[in-house]
Amino acid sequence: MDEQTAARRLAAVRRRMHAGDADAMVIMAAENVTWLTGFMGHDSWVVIIGRRMWLITDSRYTEQAAGECANCRIVERRGPITDAVARIIDRNPSVETVAVEDSCPLSTFRHLKKRTRARLLPVTQLVEDARRCKDDAEVRAIARAASLAWQSLDATIHQLHAGITERHAAGILEFEMRKLGAGPSFDTIMAFGANASRAHHQPGPRRLRQNDTILVDFGARIDGYCSDTTRCFVFGRPSRLYERAWYAVFAAQQAAISKVRAGARLRDVDAAARTVLRQHDLPVYGHGTGHGLGLQVHETPFMSKAAKGTLNEGDVVTVEPGVYIPGRLGVRIEDDVLVTETGCTILTKDRRFGFSSRQMPVLPHR
Amino acid sequence: MDEQTAARRLAAVRRRMHAGDADAMVIMAAENVTWLTGFMGHDSWVVIIGRRMWLITDSRYTEQAAGECANCRIVERRGPITDAVARIIDRNPSVETVAVEDSCPLSTFRHLKKRTRARLLPVTQLVEDARRCKDDAEVRAIARAASLAWQSLDATIHQLHAGITERHAAGILEFEMRKLGAGPSFDTIMAFGANASRAHHQPGPRRLRQNDTILVDFGARIDGYCSDTTRCFVFGRPSRLYERAWYAVFAAQQAAISKVRAGARLRDVDAAARTVLRQHDLPVYGHGTGHGLGLQVHETPFMSKAAKGTLNEGDVVTVEPGVYIPGRLGVRIEDDVLVTETGCTILTKDRRFGFSSRQMPVLPHR
Repeated sequence: MDEQTAARRLAAVRRRMHAGDADAMVIMAAENVTWLTGFMGHDSWVVIIGRRMWLITDSRYTEQAAGECANCRIVERRGPITDAVARIIDRNPSVETVAVEDSCPLSTFRHLKKRTRARLLPVTQLVEDARRCKDDAEVRAIARAASLAWQSLDATIHQLHAGITERHAAGILEFEMRKLGAGPSFDTIMAFGANASRAHHQPGPRRLRQNDTILVDFGARIDGYCSDTTRCFVFGRPSRLYERAWYAVFAAQQAAISKVRAGARLRDVDAAARTVLRQHDLPVYGHGTGHGLGLQVHETPFMSKAAKGTLNEGDVVTVEPGVYIPGRLGVRIEDDVLVTETGCTILTKDRRFGFSSRQMPVLPHR
Repeated sequence: MDEQTAARRLAAVRRRMHAGDADAMVIMAAENVTWLTGFMGHDSWVVIIGRRMWLITDSRYTEQAAGECANCRIVERRGPITDAVARIIDRNPSVETVAVEDSCPLSTFRHLKKRTRARLLPVTQLVEDARRCKDDAEVRAIARAASLAWQSLDATIHQLHAGITERHAAGILEFEMRKLGAGPSFDTIMAFGANASRAHHQPGPRRLRQNDTILVDFGARIDGYCSDTTRCFVFGRPSRLYERAWYAVFAAQQAAISKVRAGARLRDVDAAARTVLRQHDLPVYGHGTGHGLGLQVHETPFMSKAAKGTLNEGDVVTVEPGVYIPGRLGVRIEDDVLVTETGCTILTKDRRFGFSSRQMPVLPHR
């Protein structure tokens, strides 16, 4: 991370800290630590006091941290991490109130509270809000992850054949991502036939059969940034119901995407997709219509029926309506878009898998 | 899960709940939920009141939960999960004190506290302690995961060649696990040469060269249960220092394993390995000597210098000393053992990779 970016991010967090009356902050969530310092390891926390920043890590990561973090002091702890953090805080007598992320485990909060004389102030999504709006480098990283994801899917499609199991197919896809220097950003969902009605199906021993349908929900992660996309295919000839569902979901997704722009209400984007499905007389889905993504595959904002707030310029969100009929079918189409002042830029447009052609992708039987 | 197992587990948790004066409990940690109900999905909690158990899930998982959980009522929530849980608790006026896992996020605890009239009692490791001692089926599952892991490593070794990158090699290994119906139990560590001095190295673009060393730390997960093993190889001819380190680490591991039995102090097992390294005039490692494993890849007990307590019969733990010299080398050897009354059973003995032969594995150059 260049120095300017690092300084800008630290300043954004410090502004929010001070607005909440804290003179110091402890940051524990791994993605928040990465965003502030460039450190890509785990189990390491950041402490901010004034303009100074510490990364508290352990011997597994000291060498890596020294290479990755230019903007903070690296402390190799020996005992519990809460003790090391409390020592740093208590060495600075001017610190009275320490902001602590309320995503941390209750036990961690209680330990830290026992160890330091400072007052702890739980804060919600402070760093998450600061990193919600993506900068150009972050948008490029997400787009690059998506591009690698499509390349991997393309290579996978050519290896599918009747008789292959869901988990073998998922394994091929993840391996193709690995070969391109990426990793999966989450456990790949590969669902054949009616298994796709489970929105979070875990790939199993189910084998691909003629005229089966395939749902694949997957993402690549590169340099920490994630993509998250879903495509549905027919392996042979689709049923009429399936075809109807696919085109309805595609239309629902287009309707939602057309609502996306800075200032749009989250729930309005959500409602746009559901309305289309109702018009097609199809059941609406139980999950949300989309979520932010970046260093995490699910992050703020979340677009759902009950969501409050609006989209901001610089948000990167998924748009992913679906139709699920247990025992019969599941269809979901998911793309990642960058919110702009006047609309959005689709970061995951594909040529082959139905988006640009607006046609349900049908694979030749093999 | 058979009914008898399910009933035994629920009873074990209820005993601990009542000892702590709680009349109800909320269980949020995914592995604890799996252990109690057989449910393999995510984002779902268990509520226990008296002899009754509820699984609170959402529409993504309702169908799956119905297939996996025989011993609890399934509730499909619409709003926040804390609201759904509070409703169940408050419908039972006899409930006064609800045990809540203190591994839950602080924010979750605060939300739940606002929603229910019952008193919340943070509890530490309650279900983790109940599931620490593994039953026969669990031991078999871990051993099966380990066996698949060795099969995958064997298949991977044959595909290594000069010029392959760490991440490609890690990808092959994970794909081989997938083909056998397993998944990786954590992100594979594949470190070539001096990269292995980082105990938690993330596989990168580094290419395999002649006379390189290879450290691979990986595990398979099958039916939820994990293996976790590390092996080190030489691709060609080793340096003298490397050879010395390998045999010292092997001896350190043997020394630690020889201490393992029910009743042994955790810190004594840890010390046994360190003593051997000191005798060999090599630096001791910063991490612990081992950890429990089961549904989680890291779970109680932890064997380290500062650890309190003893090993119990039925514990399954890793034994994994290492030597790390930044910029030069890293060696770690890790196996999984079942603690018995009189010693231990090694669940991960291998024929090919140095354990049974007591020889440093050297791969022919390709």
